[in-house]
Amino acid sequence: MTGTIYLLNGPNLNLLGKRQPEIYGSETLGDVEAAASARAESHGLATRALQSNAEHQLIDWIHEARDTAVAIVINPGAYSHTSVAILDALNAYEGPVIEVHISNVHKREEFRRHSYVSLRADGVIAGCGTQGYLLAIDRVASLVKSSI
Amino acid sequence: MTGTIYLLNGPNLNLLGKRQPEIYGSETLGDVEAAASARAESHGLATRALQSNAEHQLIDWIHEARDTAVAIVINPGAYSHTSVAILDALNAYEGPVIEVHISNVHKREEFRRHSYVSLRADGVIAGCGTQGYLLAIDRVASLVKSSI
Amino acid sequence: MTGTIYLLNGPNLNLLGKRQPEIYGSETLGDVEAAASARAESHGLATRALQSNAEHQLIDWIHEARDTAVAIVINPGAYSHTSVAILDALNAYEGPVIEVHISNVHKREEFRRHSYVSLRADGVIAGCGTQGYLLAIDRVASLVKSSI
Amino acid sequence: MTGTIYLLNGPNLNLLGKRQPEIYGSETLGDVEAAASARAESHGLATRALQSNAEHQLIDWIHEARDTAVAIVINPGAYSHTSVAILDALNAYEGPVIEVHISNVHKREEFRRHSYVSLRADGVIAGCGTQGYLLAIDRVASLVKSSI
Amino acid sequence: MTGTIYLLNGPNLNLLGKRQPEIYGSETLGDVEAAASARAESHGLATRALQSNAEHQLIDWIHEARDTAVAIVINPGAYSHTSVAILDALNAYEGPVIEVHISNVHKREEFRRHSYVSLRADGVIAGCGTQGYLLAIDRVASLVKSSI
Amino acid sequence: MTGTIYLLNGPNLNLLGKRQPEIYGSETLGDVEAAASARAESHGLATRALQSNAEHQLIDWIHEARDTAVAIVINPGAYSHTSVAILDALNAYEGPVIEVHISNVHKREEFRRHSYVSLRADGVIAGCGTQGYLLAIDRVASLVKSSI
Amino acid sequence: MTGTIYLLNGPNLNLLGKRQPEIYGSETLGDVEAAASARAESHGLATRALQSNAEHQLIDWIHEARDTAVAIVINPGAYSHTSVAILDALNAYEGPVIEVHISNVHKREEFRRHSYVSLRADGVIAGCGTQGYLLAIDRVASLVKSSI
Amino acid sequence: MTGTIYLLNGPNLNLLGKRQPEIYGSETLGDVEAAASARAESHGLATRALQSNAEHQLIDWIHEARDTAVAIVINPGAYSHTSVAILDALNAYEGPVIEVHISNVHKREEFRRHSYVSLRADGVIAGCGTQGYLLAIDRVASLVKSSI
Amino acid sequence: MTGTIYLLNGPNLNLLGKRQPEIYGSETLGDVEAAASARAESHGLATRALQSNAEHQLIDWIHEARDTAVAIVINPGAYSHTSVAILDALNAYEGPVIEVHISNVHKREEFRRHSYVSLRADGVIAGCGTQGYLLAIDRVASLVKSSI
Amino acid sequence: MTGTIYLLNGPNLNLLGKRQPEIYGSETLGDVEAAASARAESHGLATRALQSNAEHQLIDWIHEARDTAVAIVINPGAYSHTSVAILDALNAYEGPVIEVHISNVHKREEFRRHSYVSLRADGVIAGCGTQGYLLAIDRVASLVKSSI
Amino acid sequence: MTGTIYLLNGPNLNLLGKRQPEIYGSETLGDVEAAASARAESHGLATRALQSNAEHQLIDWIHEARDTAVAIVINPGAYSHTSVAILDALNAYEGPVIEVHISNVHKREEFRRHSYVSLRADGVIAGCGTQGYLLAIDRVASLVKSSI
Amino acid sequence: MTGTIYLLNGPNLNLLGKRQPEIYGSETLGDVEAAASARAESHGLATRALQSNAEHQLIDWIHEARDTAVAIVINPGAYSHTSVAILDALNAYEGPVIEVHISNVHKREEFRRHSYVSLRADGVIAGCGTQGYLLAIDRVASLVKSSI
Repeated sequence: MTGTIYLLNGPNLNLLGKRQPEIYGSETLGDVEAAASARAESHGLATRALQSNAEHQLIDWIHEARDTAVAIVINPGAYSHTSVAILDALNAYEGPVIEVHISNVHKREEFRRHSYVSLRADGVIAGCGTQGYLLAIDRVASLVKSSI
Repeated sequence: MTGTIYLLNGPNLNLLGKRQPEIYGSETLGDVEAAASARAESHGLATRALQSNAEHQLIDWIHEARDTAVAIVINPGAYSHTSVAILDALNAYEGPVIEVHISNVHKREEFRRHSYVSLRADGVIAGCGTQGYLLAIDRVASLVKSSI
Repeated sequence: MTGTIYLLNGPNLNLLGKRQPEIYGSETLGDVEAAASARAESHGLATRALQSNAEHQLIDWIHEARDTAVAIVINPGAYSHTSVAILDALNAYEGPVIEVHISNVHKREEFRRHSYVSLRADGVIAGCGTQGYLLAIDRVASLVKSSI
Repeated sequence: MTGTIYLLNGPNLNLLGKRQPEIYGSETLGDVEAAASARAESHGLATRALQSNAEHQLIDWIHEARDTAVAIVINPGAYSHTSVAILDALNAYEGPVIEVHISNVHKREEFRRHSYVSLRADGVIAGCGTQGYLLAIDRVASLVKSSI
Repeated sequence: MTGTIYLLNGPNLNLLGKRQPEIYGSETLGDVEAAASARAESHGLATRALQSNAEHQLIDWIHEARDTAVAIVINPGAYSHTSVAILDALNAYEGPVIEVHISNVHKREEFRRHSYVSLRADGVIAGCGTQGYLLAIDRVASLVKSSI
Repeated sequence: MTGTIYLLNGPNLNLLGKRQPEIYGSETLGDVEAAASARAESHGLATRALQSNAEHQLIDWIHEARDTAVAIVINPGAYSHTSVAILDALNAYEGPVIEVHISNVHKREEFRRHSYVSLRADGVIAGCGTQGYLLAIDRVASLVKSSI
Repeated sequence: MTGTIYLLNGPNLNLLGKRQPEIYGSETLGDVEAAASARAESHGLATRALQSNAEHQLIDWIHEARDTAVAIVINPGAYSHTSVAILDALNAYEGPVIEVHISNVHKREEFRRHSYVSLRADGVIAGCGTQGYLLAIDRVASLVKSSI
Repeated sequence: MTGTIYLLNGPNLNLLGKRQPEIYGSETLGDVEAAASARAESHGLATRALQSNAEHQLIDWIHEARDTAVAIVINPGAYSHTSVAILDALNAYEGPVIEVHISNVHKREEFRRHSYVSLRADGVIAGCGTQGYLLAIDRVASLVKSSI
Repeated sequence: MTGTIYLLNGPNLNLLGKRQPEIYGSETLGDVEAAASARAESHGLATRALQSNAEHQLIDWIHEARDTAVAIVINPGAYSHTSVAILDALNAYEGPVIEVHISNVHKREEFRRHSYVSLRADGVIAGCGTQGYLLAIDRVASLVKSSI
Repeated sequence: MTGTIYLLNGPNLNLLGKRQPEIYGSETLGDVEAAASARAESHGLATRALQSNAEHQLIDWIHEARDTAVAIVINPGAYSHTSVAILDALNAYEGPVIEVHISNVHKREEFRRHSYVSLRADGVIAGCGTQGYLLAIDRVASLVKSSI
Repeated sequence: MTGTIYLLNGPNLNLLGKRQPEIYGSETLGDVEAAASARAESHGLATRALQSNAEHQLIDWIHEARDTAVAIVINPGAYSHTSVAILDALNAYEGPVIEVHISNVHKREEFRRHSYVSLRADGVIAGCGTQGYLLAIDRVASLVKSSI
Repeated sequence: MTGTIYLLNGPNLNLLGKRQPEIYGSETLGDVEAAASARAESHGLATRALQSNAEHQLIDWIHEARDTAVAIVINPGAYSHTSVAILDALNAYEGPVIEVHISNVHKREEFRRHSYVSLRADGVIAGCGTQGYLLAIDRVASLVKSSI
């Protein structure tokens, strides 16, 4: 495979599929990561899937990605709205970045409509459920291929 | 095929591929619509691709879609930011709606960060170039299938 | 009859009675226009009832009204909140203007609380359902009579 | 008669018709109340017409209306813009509420464009002069009849 | 007993327990005042429980409290958000002041998030239901004792 | 004497001189009213001095002043910042109005910097202590004389 | 002649000279267009003068101008303040653009002080009456000449 | 005992009692936790008292609480004002949540008046000193009992 | 005489009485200064009357006043609204400062409602015409006497 | 010649043509003034061309213009955005005023989009380079002639 | 040496010198810390240089500094703009605090212009590159010496 | 010496050391200028130290500096917050600019937190007392040397 996509998930996404399965479905973060990995493989790419509730951990992984990742797919969760530090870390990363939100954040509280990460992301995919991660993988695959 | 996706493009998108090809590529709106149609077909769906610079024409097509479309993929262009009337028309449509923006609107002028259409759209895909339309087709295909 | 009232309806009002009849009733725009016409007749006045989803069409009709209408009753729909051009057209009209909204716009989204048309209208009637049109006819009948 | 409409007028409306008759006409609040009563009677309804400059008195009457009124027609005057307490009182009333303003408040100072009462009222009638009270009576009559 | 706590309730709180008992419970203001009195007694304190819909009456009672009360527990209701005059009256009172809201005002409309009274209150207890009054009594009892 | 000046004081001003005499001095509202009366007399004018914590009482007195007062000197206290109703009452009064504040409200909390009453008052005197009332009397005396 | 200037007029400008001739003069839009044409001719340039109340028509003409016009002089009327779509169309035009307003929009309502078109226009001429069009022609003539 | 209350303290609260004892008292966080534990025991409940300066640690404990706690009492300290992530974690918790602030945050800097946590908390207790924790325990005890 | 009052007038006040005498009266700045001087003398005080259109000149005079003036009466004209530098100069002056505005600035454009000088002034007198200067002299005379 | 136009230039315009000639051209302020003078002469008018970096000097010249100028053409430079004092001086001038900006200020920083001078100017010409001064001369020539 | 300065660096500063050396220079954080240490030594002081991407780690170090540091020099990076928790930690520290930013944050995005840390810092040095740390050391050295 | 640093001080800084010596110290502006000169000399540079309360004088000196200064160190005092004209003058200067504030302006009134000069300055040093000037000299010395 020609490269690794970092698939980063932020705070509270570890709960995915663990609550209100009748609403959010029974798909866990592990399921999503596996599906994303399979989708990446179909493009000849690997994934490194990581989740943390800690802002600094996400920053560290983004720093790490500078040397090892061909692209970043990130769902910053609530840190989208509050973390300039993650924005700065992404500003120091040079490859493609796609921001994913499972729900359509624009239909929720006012404070969720602004994302610091969107100021750096190349693309933003919101409200496409967990399928959004797969669409993001498709997008970065295209970008990675076209930049070769 | 089991249904038709309305692919609506708003003002100025008729210029796609007609200016600054070194920047925006030589892909015209016709090319994009053809690619979207092909992608829809691969999901067993048809598309009805329409573009207008007129707000009322977009409204009329959305009304028409109430009876004939299984989903709407819409790039409202500048009307995203100013048209409550298109929002109201979409509010009267009951199927899935995906909003597409070719560029990442969040990185541009302040007034482009707010979209009335996002208040109704199920999903929003921005900054994924013209590939965004294909990702949107993929998404509505999933939604249409899961709702059968 | 001594004069004609223009009864103008803006975007999406053509859908009246066509969706969710259990909520909005089965009364269509045609029904409403007929009732308004009858009410006007009871005051010795005629109506010219027009609907368009197009901002410019509404402007053209308002211009036309300058020569032919004794009053305007207008439900500008979503254009209330966004159209300075309709405000300017109404500013060029000299007879009475009553603005009607079927729902109470003040109880809805923040952006529906401001109406450019209200800056020109003599009266504003909101949240009285389709009866609001009849009340507006009653009001302009009084104004027209008192100005003779 | 099948019920009583409370017709409440707020601060300064006791001056109606008592100043600048060449502008506001010679119609006093008493005249208006009499006309409203007659209009209500024509619908088979009674009115209880009350005016106070005191916020608490209006609140008390709204509380009283909970047991005795089929509807409330209220011109809260300046308290429209400042009284959350009257809003709360109306929130505890379950029948129809129509808010009336004699002038078109939207054409006046910025602070008159917001009404707390509009957040509860079913309908709002502004700028129809004292005829607005009669239109409001017509409206509540319809609502009362249709809810039987 | 060593002192009297003024327990002041503002507009619309006289309706407590009188509407929607399935939601708010059947506890009336009288019940709440009795419970508060009992709780105060358990701390060796008396209460003077008063309710008014009138802003000026609350001001007068606060003035009266300057000479006779060891503390004030106040639920200013809607006046929390609009009354600088009550704030000023409390500024002229020197003992402890605890502000109580039955519901969590921070989860309601934007205009309920600001309280003038909070600019003076020593403590604020919101969203603890009618138990909030008892907690407030406990708090002022502690303060009164520690200041002896 | 050729006329009567209404000297109106709003909420909490009844406490003047009754608290913190080392700071505010021992001059009570009665003292201030007596001094103002003497000053008015020196201009050949009478005063009618009234204080209330009730917004509606102030409104009633302003209405009364329409027939009996040559001028109004008013310290609306906290109602300056919140009462549109008092503004409306003053708008219905045709003689000179001078607004007095004992302290310089511009040096205090942000919400004290805006006064509805200032939108009607002819003159505003703030931060001149209780002498401000005397200066206001001097001013209205001049205005009354020059308008004869 | 070496080129054509597009002279575009937006909504309501068709009424020019048709109302209140004592105020606005009897000069119609036709007169203004003729004068502009003559002025352009004096610079060796032609004009194509067009007016529409429709936003999309203006967009279409701006698109057309991409191939055929050496410059655009545009009075967008009310669309100045509300149309991002016209801004985007102008952003796709590469020649000089001068924005004209007959009145000084900065002296009118607050919402007229912001123009989306000004974010693209090279020059803005406001408040010079219909002479503003001639000054704009003079300006684009200079720009066209200097760019040869 | 029938259940455990999580008592969570956020950043800087580990310093409690360690600085300026003449002002804040000599009561340490340990003392407060012990008192809270005793109070809980009196209600037949246990506590699990935890403090962290790390946002992610607080999130992890809230996640943990989903399975093990009957209620959460939380003083989020400065994270109240900045952490959407903690709000989201609490949104995933289904039991009662009481927010505690030792000081009255409404009397401090403007940015302390808004709390994300208050958007989820059932109750908020501020400005009651360390006694606030005990009042919160009393409240959750009532809620836990009434929900059995 | 026991001291000198600086009477400072800012930009455009040199035009006083020189334009529109039918409106502003024929009283020039010289007349006003003479009247103020006479009033000061009646209190046993002298004046030093100065006017400048230059911000720095006003600053210099305020600095000079630190050694030579018992009080400052200042009409900063338009600099009230824009000059932090004059505020800072006044902050370095220790005697009483009274700010005078001939018109009631609160009834004019929004930007005239804020005065930097009011953040330092002890008293503010607005809308009392040129008599305002005399009232200001009376006020500083009282302050000067009481501080002896 | 029948009159003199004051041509006033504000701060930093003395640098015109002295820096970055490859960008701003080699045309100095002297050149611009000479061209404006010639243009004025062609209309039978003289100019008095003045530049100052001092706000008060511009005010003084505007005062002087009250007696000697038939019109004012002014480029207030940075003072456009900050000087209420210049606005007030222009308010005291009765002839035509045209405001000129060499660049299109609307395309620059947010704070340059507001001009106090525009609140008084009859016309505003921005972004027409130094030719803007000539267009302004043309405009005032028309106004002066038409007012004879 | 008489004391230790804590030299704290926040998120992303570990990347210093590791990217775009042609722009940021090849100086790493280690180099900067060494230079700062040497500068401190020249003042007879030691440094303890620490960097973390974690907000809580910075808080912990600030707590630690309460007992062991004579001063803090801190570059909070992105946390400057978002961390009330670090502000609170610094509020609990009693020695001198100097805030350093390598770039001039005031020339960047709007959200970087506000720093919570500046509300506590004694001094702020921005835009002096890495030399800013040395200037900060010089400053705290002076403060430490003068406080002995 | 290889160059001259302009050391510019704005309004009210001539008072330095002349008031409240127990607070601000007895160091006068002359002392500060002498210390700065000595520090510059130690770097092989001269200073030209100038102070004015006049905005235009500062502008003139900045213009002068274009030909004669290797760098500017400026404390614009209150003009930092209000002068776009000084910003524009500095924009026309090409060497390094360091802005100095003696106090930490971020801890003072809201309006002192914004500085127009910071939009141009290379570095900003605030809250380091008069030592800030010396740090600024050190910084420009480094910049001047590195640019040779």
